[in-house]
Amino acid sequence: MIVKMSKQATKANYDNLVTALKQKKFTIKDVSSKHIRIFGIIGDTASLDVNDIKAFEGVEEAIRIQKPFKQASRAFKEEATIITLKNGVRIGSEAAVMMAGPCSVESETQLFTIADFLSKQGVKVLRGGAYKPRTSPYTFQGMQEAGLKLLRQAADKYGMAVVSEIPRSDLIDTFDAYVDIMQVGARNMQNFELLKALGKTRKPILLKRGLSATIEEWLMSAEYIINSGNPNVILAERGIRTFETYTRNTLDISAVLAIKELSHLPVIVDPSHAAGRWNMIEKLSAASLAVGADGLIVEVHHDPENALSDGAQSLKFDNFSQAFNALKILSQALNRPLI
Amino acid sequence: MIVKMSKQATKANYDNLVTALKQKKFTIKDVSSKHIRIFGIIGDTASLDVNDIKAFEGVEEAIRIQKPFKQASRAFKEEATIITLKNGVRIGSEAAVMMAGPCSVESETQLFTIADFLSKQGVKVLRGGAYKPRTSPYTFQGMQEAGLKLLRQAADKYGMAVVSEIPRSDLIDTFDAYVDIMQVGARNMQNFELLKALGKTRKPILLKRGLSATIEEWLMSAEYIINSGNPNVILAERGIRTFETYTRNTLDISAVLAIKELSHLPVIVDPSHAAGRWNMIEKLSAASLAVGADGLIVEVHHDPENALSDGAQSLKFDNFSQAFNALKILSQALNRPLI
Amino acid sequence: MIVKMSKQATKANYDNLVTALKQKKFTIKDVSSKHIRIFGIIGDTASLDVNDIKAFEGVEEAIRIQKPFKQASRAFKEEATIITLKNGVRIGSEAAVMMAGPCSVESETQLFTIADFLSKQGVKVLRGGAYKPRTSPYTFQGMQEAGLKLLRQAADKYGMAVVSEIPRSDLIDTFDAYVDIMQVGARNMQNFELLKALGKTRKPILLKRGLSATIEEWLMSAEYIINSGNPNVILAERGIRTFETYTRNTLDISAVLAIKELSHLPVIVDPSHAAGRWNMIEKLSAASLAVGADGLIVEVHHDPENALSDGAQSLKFDNFSQAFNALKILSQALNRPLI
Amino acid sequence: MIVKMSKQATKANYDNLVTALKQKKFTIKDVSSKHIRIFGIIGDTASLDVNDIKAFEGVEEAIRIQKPFKQASRAFKEEATIITLKNGVRIGSEAAVMMAGPCSVESETQLFTIADFLSKQGVKVLRGGAYKPRTSPYTFQGMQEAGLKLLRQAADKYGMAVVSEIPRSDLIDTFDAYVDIMQVGARNMQNFELLKALGKTRKPILLKRGLSATIEEWLMSAEYIINSGNPNVILAERGIRTFETYTRNTLDISAVLAIKELSHLPVIVDPSHAAGRWNMIEKLSAASLAVGADGLIVEVHHDPENALSDGAQSLKFDNFSQAFNALKILSQALNRPLI
Repeated sequence: MIVKMSKQATKANYDNLVTALKQKKFTIKDVSSKHIRIFGIIGDTASLDVNDIKAFEGVEEAIRIQKPFKQASRAFKEEATIITLKNGVRIGSEAAVMMAGPCSVESETQLFTIADFLSKQGVKVLRGGAYKPRTSPYTFQGMQEAGLKLLRQAADKYGMAVVSEIPRSDLIDTFDAYVDIMQVGARNMQNFELLKALGKTRKPILLKRGLSATIEEWLMSAEYIINSGNPNVILAERGIRTFETYTRNTLDISAVLAIKELSHLPVIVDPSHAAGRWNMIEKLSAASLAVGADGLIVEVHHDPENALSDGAQSLKFDNFSQAFNALKILSQALNRPLI
Repeated sequence: MIVKMSKQATKANYDNLVTALKQKKFTIKDVSSKHIRIFGIIGDTASLDVNDIKAFEGVEEAIRIQKPFKQASRAFKEEATIITLKNGVRIGSEAAVMMAGPCSVESETQLFTIADFLSKQGVKVLRGGAYKPRTSPYTFQGMQEAGLKLLRQAADKYGMAVVSEIPRSDLIDTFDAYVDIMQVGARNMQNFELLKALGKTRKPILLKRGLSATIEEWLMSAEYIINSGNPNVILAERGIRTFETYTRNTLDISAVLAIKELSHLPVIVDPSHAAGRWNMIEKLSAASLAVGADGLIVEVHHDPENALSDGAQSLKFDNFSQAFNALKILSQALNRPLI
Repeated sequence: MIVKMSKQATKANYDNLVTALKQKKFTIKDVSSKHIRIFGIIGDTASLDVNDIKAFEGVEEAIRIQKPFKQASRAFKEEATIITLKNGVRIGSEAAVMMAGPCSVESETQLFTIADFLSKQGVKVLRGGAYKPRTSPYTFQGMQEAGLKLLRQAADKYGMAVVSEIPRSDLIDTFDAYVDIMQVGARNMQNFELLKALGKTRKPILLKRGLSATIEEWLMSAEYIINSGNPNVILAERGIRTFETYTRNTLDISAVLAIKELSHLPVIVDPSHAAGRWNMIEKLSAASLAVGADGLIVEVHHDPENALSDGAQSLKFDNFSQAFNALKILSQALNRPLI
Repeated sequence: MIVKMSKQATKANYDNLVTALKQKKFTIKDVSSKHIRIFGIIGDTASLDVNDIKAFEGVEEAIRIQKPFKQASRAFKEEATIITLKNGVRIGSEAAVMMAGPCSVESETQLFTIADFLSKQGVKVLRGGAYKPRTSPYTFQGMQEAGLKLLRQAADKYGMAVVSEIPRSDLIDTFDAYVDIMQVGARNMQNFELLKALGKTRKPILLKRGLSATIEEWLMSAEYIINSGNPNVILAERGIRTFETYTRNTLDISAVLAIKELSHLPVIVDPSHAAGRWNMIEKLSAASLAVGADGLIVEVHHDPENALSDGAQSLKFDNFSQAFNALKILSQALNRPLI
């Protein structure tokens, strides 16, 4: 961490801060010029908060040079993390993985219709929401545990794995019984209590990026889970909030590259929530594979017009078939199969 | 809600959507021009999701005209909501209310030193974090229940009320025993499970605006709490995330005016988290009172340089005294006392 | 345009607005429900400003339904616009086009070294800045007209076309003499005086998206050029400003898809300015081709470490060769060659 | 500037960069720890671009510690800059200054009606647009030079000064003949050619903040004008672009405080463009005075419903009178008169 003292700072201000840092076993290296006093703090600065340093009188600026995440970083672990599901699917490995399914589980008929179709297409991971975090209390909130049961039944019938969003920590045992991947929704990315609780399981966690989270904050949330004991974290880019309103969110495709540089964790892309428009999904999926995403998670529905949530961004069966085939051809050109 | 069909939309597309809406008891009013087919949906559109309408084939645009919040709206309840605390302080009433205290409770000595000082200044509401949602798992996470106990003891000794952040729903009974206002942090603003659980109590809830929440989303989160049974919601503007980095967040002062137009709920301002710089707090507090905020919540510490969190944005005692006095004088000119 | 009157609006308020609109030959269609008065304005609403309607007493909301751009819209012109350069290159046609070159022209040796290399790679369009809009007045401002001359000489020698940024309208004749495409920089996207002046030429214009421009505003800037007489506009997505700081800007890959839906104009991508990191350029280029961009514009330098501007985002020769080859292979899989 | 080398960087990478910097007369101070090589660059780093340093192989991060602006900084000039207009009004001095007038000059009658009213209210600076930068080419573009003439006539009749926006540099002589302050619009804040040309005059320049400009970029634009020879710059905060849509822009009230810390230049606030809603103007003006703004610029119209631009954000005469009186009373409590 680099600290710059203000012009008005006194020698006493400087000594005060340096003494406090030395007591915490940090080493100080001075880089002051004639006009400004600047120094570096050497040591395990992940435990220092920039704002705590700025609290010292006379400090104008404190800038972190070392990344604050450790166990999630590539510096900590060079080789890529691969997450193996019970049905044998490996995420972050030689193939990119397609995850698909309805936004919400709505009924047995709906779910089995979709799962049947997807399994015939070759899809190995089934998505579906049972507990739905909706912006409005007046809209459908999900089938709850009954939805999880249906997901497990459909998945077992078709040899698929299941991913579903967990909204609170007292449901961990329930989810553990039914799903293969527990998803943390974008709105809960910094629900640190939930993250810590999920660190106690060994189930893979799909951690969505928050609506306006920086890449660094996202990795810090992964760090919470890993540091609590669960190294099985998959990241999911799902668009960030900007001033642009034509799309629901702005897909940050560069984030996939950034994660690959900074971390050993697998990262997938959710084009459905990013765009909010079904007719963009195929192309945004292609772009995601082109930058090296480890997988995709897309919404598919046999009858989006009567879906209970997110119909606008769901692919119909024929659109999905066509997109999946096109993406498989593309993935060959990219030398990484899509399964 | 207004729906615009695309140029390519067929008569069948139109009929399909209209039939579905009529089945849900909505009335359709057509406003089509020669070139485009547009119609309005009349009825209780709060239960309709814009994205579900867009899912229908042939729909180009669906635009909400009615606000999606009801019970939080001024249209629903004209007169301002006033929240009365056990020590007699009334929020949203004739006086603006100062809430102050340390970012985190760190020790008995620390808390009582600060509470003693604040009570002598006339402050009636004590803030203090016991469960700290920190971006990094490697920084101080709070004193937990021991912190809550200290807050209650200090508050009782000095006749103050206590506000503290509740991080998860299984702590509601614990918080109920110790605090007068339960705070929902910015990162939990859309933790709908927590909001629903807080709707089961009658304790006042201080709902912070999310890091990148729109005013509408913020009011929808208030709606969750009210709709679950608890009408005692206080809103707190604490800055939003923008591209500007000089301040920690960008204080959205206009949001106070917007809330006053749209809602009957009281709204206060947290200049400490907005700016992240203690030397901006007095002036931003003045601006907040000038636009009509119902109160302020500021961080005060006797020794910010050794605070365990957020020292950079905490006021020292002498700065707080001076600021509080200046703000009281200003509040007289504004014809609304500050207590 | 849809207008919603407030609850407080009187009959007189309504009549006043409706009368004014009827005088301007608009037709009014009422969609009022029991509780709110809402009506649609039918006619050429592109000439109406939403803010002017909101100025009328009693108006709560005015929402545009029709897009404000006309001549730039696909509704106006169904078939894609193709721009043919003097050297035969066609932009927006059967092949995607690679444009490459240094950020700034620095010297004859520098430019010819780079142009020689690029032409051998098969690149047909040479980019290079002669007038450099720099954030700081203390950094290199470009070789000015001497730079344009060098660009023309290099291009002629190697059979390439030239694209370079024009900073002000009194240079139009100068640029007309030297370049094949005049670029409008992101910071000048809403310099309407420049746009109107460029409408007087027939030279193709490369219109970069502004730093925080919406897609609609970007197309409105294209509309300015077309409406002033020049239909030869190429759009260039170059990243938008968000809170994320790991990349210089956030490449909005979905914007390419949006433009293809909304407009007939060709759109290319500038991954160099979007990312600000040379090691992301190949992958972001691949993503751009995957979503259907009509071309790429990338920065290449034989010695980026000693470049006078933007070295961090420039590809070295070997990196460019490798990237260009990989992208050509990808483009075959996408069924659209890259030239 | 602080430079951090990557883990992969070689000794040769390091030597290469250090040698280049030493040739440019910079001094290097090493702060490396065991694991990472970090050093500071000492000297006049305003001439260094962060991106040029990052271009060197092996560089992971380059962070500016010194502010890039010099002549606009408070470090360069401690005492506040005061700008004195020909009619004696002093901006940045003991009193805050109200500037008011219509968005656009529309006719002699309109302008003189408004100017007559404002002068009776005591307003000393008249605003009015003659060249209107509009997002759409299909809306009113201003009366051009005829508008400037009317502004001068009205101002002379009532002893006022005039501020109006200049859209391009070839109009400088024209504007010089008619106005007292030349305004640079938000969309031209980084039109560096215009800024350089305005540096050649001595007329005061009102520099609006760009739609998504950082405070640092805004001061760099001021630096361009000052460095070209004109020290008479007034800054105007007018809201920034965020995801929030209830207001037209988000007024960044903290920017006033930031400018006061960082610069000696006067700074005023434009609440009309920030909010885009006339009913927020009085309160946002109060907030602006409360944080110490040197003035206000607000839109006033006798008949906003028939204004040719920006009616929604214009105050009517009675609203202006009431607001101006209330603000004057407030300004007394703030110990700084408003004139």
